[in-house]
Amino acid sequence: MKKFLLIPDSFKGTMSSSEICSIMKKAILNNYNDAEVISIPVADGGEGSVDAFLTAVGGEKISVKVKGPYFEDITSFYGIIDNGKTAVIEMAACAGLPLVEDKANPCKTTTYGVGQLIANAVERGCKKIIIGLGGSCTNDGGAGAAAALGVVFTDKAGKSFVPVGGTLKDIEHIDKSKLLPALKQVEVVTMCDIDNPLFGESGAAYVFAPQKGATPEMVKELDFGLRHLDKKIQSDLNLSLSELKGAGAAGGMGCGMVAFLGSALQMGIETVLDTVKFDELLKGADYVLSGEGKIDTQSIRGKVVMGIAKRTKKANIPLIAIVGDIGDGIEEAYEKGVTGIFSINRVAVEFKDAKKRAKQDLYLTVDNLMRFIKSISK
Amino acid sequence: MKKFLLIPDSFKGTMSSSEICSIMKKAILNNYNDAEVISIPVADGGEGSVDAFLTAVGGEKISVKVKGPYFEDITSFYGIIDNGKTAVIEMAACAGLPLVEDKANPCKTTTYGVGQLIANAVERGCKKIIIGLGGSCTNDGGAGAAAALGVVFTDKAGKSFVPVGGTLKDIEHIDKSKLLPALKQVEVVTMCDIDNPLFGESGAAYVFAPQKGATPEMVKELDFGLRHLDKKIQSDLNLSLSELKGAGAAGGMGCGMVAFLGSALQMGIETVLDTVKFDELLKGADYVLSGEGKIDTQSIRGKVVMGIAKRTKKANIPLIAIVGDIGDGIEEAYEKGVTGIFSINRVAVEFKDAKKRAKQDLYLTVDNLMRFIKSISK
Repeated sequence: MKKFLLIPDSFKGTMSSSEICSIMKKAILNNYNDAEVISIPVADGGEGSVDAFLTAVGGEKISVKVKGPYFEDITSFYGIIDNGKTAVIEMAACAGLPLVEDKANPCKTTTYGVGQLIANAVERGCKKIIIGLGGSCTNDGGAGAAAALGVVFTDKAGKSFVPVGGTLKDIEHIDKSKLLPALKQVEVVTMCDIDNPLFGESGAAYVFAPQKGATPEMVKELDFGLRHLDKKIQSDLNLSLSELKGAGAAGGMGCGMVAFLGSALQMGIETVLDTVKFDELLKGADYVLSGEGKIDTQSIRGKVVMGIAKRTKKANIPLIAIVGDIGDGIEEAYEKGVTGIFSINRVAVEFKDAKKRAKQDLYLTVDNLMRFIKSISK
Repeated sequence: MKKFLLIPDSFKGTMSSSEICSIMKKAILNNYNDAEVISIPVADGGEGSVDAFLTAVGGEKISVKVKGPYFEDITSFYGIIDNGKTAVIEMAACAGLPLVEDKANPCKTTTYGVGQLIANAVERGCKKIIIGLGGSCTNDGGAGAAAALGVVFTDKAGKSFVPVGGTLKDIEHIDKSKLLPALKQVEVVTMCDIDNPLFGESGAAYVFAPQKGATPEMVKELDFGLRHLDKKIQSDLNLSLSELKGAGAAGGMGCGMVAFLGSALQMGIETVLDTVKFDELLKGADYVLSGEGKIDTQSIRGKVVMGIAKRTKKANIPLIAIVGDIGDGIEEAYEKGVTGIFSINRVAVEFKDAKKRAKQDLYLTVDNLMRFIKSISK
């Protein structure tokens, strides 16, 4: 009996990781009807990450009343896995762009609810918290989440407040001494796949705030606020994060998680692989199927497929990448452990047309490959 | 040591069969540097067929002075293979469209030179003659070729003449009694991949003559001539060919070869496979690589890849099809013996752009496949 592991990234805007798993599985079972097929939808930290983890390893979804992006009351959620030991939080669940719709304004929105979700998980006894960034509507440097967990921000008048993007500049002091004590026993891991620093031209405000509704004027203001936050983190917390890669993720949430909660920033795929205990699943596997919308030199530097390749190579198990497009100069992928790379493009048409037939083409591509493997490994 | 047979059809307008063989070979040797790689460029009967046969099995190219399309003197050629026993003739070499350029007129052009090439090969002692149709500028029903070999056509006045497209209607009698006697000992095989009958809406004149410069008026005249030829073949040669599939190939040359020379019409790929002794080459082969510009339900009915599949399936050797596009509903191809079908499309772009990168994409596709095979068959 053959054993297959499926762990594809989403094809952005075309198919989710779960959909891809399900199509791949169908094509495999069409050829190996008694195969063991383990599907691991890949969480990227954004919307849907909690569901992806729950699908991959099972667990429970917890509903919690917290503050939304505008401090309004909303019902949010997080996931509990690993027998209650680990919580998985996607910040989009209470600070996500879809929650603000046409009133997006990163100068005013908060991550306060994320802190409340963390607090709830800690109170529930979780010893590890995984936080997915991505899809946020905020630019508060994680100050809101920190405030919800006991970090005190005071202004020049000595008055405590919850900073948002537009008021980061008003922070005079940061006091971590009242941080929720139970957090000290908790490992916090933040999933972060981008390299952007906190501020500057490649920073959170300049690169991402416009997508969140910021005008050029607001971008400048937000960038100034993040620079100011960095200075205060240096002076009051004795941490220098201005060069930290990923600090600029999710409106500076990357920085905040490190500065206020002592979190590690980890590649999303590494978090997924650790969480699902991928190395154990690999035992006895015949093939691993991964994939992404486009494999290119950028993805070789550290995206989903290459993260998996590191482990399959070590375990000497073939890794098949099923992708949308194959970029130029990807020979390095083979050296790094990818066994074969197959595009789902079956006819020469533009992406707008290819997209419409992607599901069918994915099925047929995996079906062809399974027929081929079955035939040549007779 | 691995043994590979390469026998791809051309990707029409993009890469010739020879070019594809050479690219495939390079990609194979990049992975199996001591592999035995046998390249069999596929002749389709048109221009380049003689060279393809000579490349595949070795032989000699013979130059001969014959009549061109307008009865002018030209230097043409044919190929001698199989230790001089077999001649390969492409009719395009003396009745090809490129020879008439801007004076194309299928009412006036002749296949007389083709008959002269056949005569030359017979005199040389060849016992088998393979005639490739395709790329012709004629519509004479093969009457010109027949005349060159001794068939006598007479008009109402009892005067012998060499009919061309526009004068087929003037044939009153056909006399085969003076046909070159040595031809009786010779097997003639005509490569023919099309199904069109001699005349009518799907016949030679209506379907192909416009590409050869015929106006709608001329098409009617040519069709009338072919109908007349058919009647005379019935009355004088006692043959009924009006329903024969392929009779309409190359301006009725298919019909002429059958009627005047007793030739068989054979699928081109079958002729190639027989001629190169494919079944013997298959012995000990690990993989056969074929391919075509597009694999679709039409190609399943009888083109290059499927012709090869019949034989590889019997020999139980994997057949890999490397193609441009993969049409819908081609699952039948697997049942008929194709092991795997891989498109060279690596990015979602239109054909006009895909075409420009086809050679590179072909190389990378075969390279990927070889890496994959090597890796999973360790």
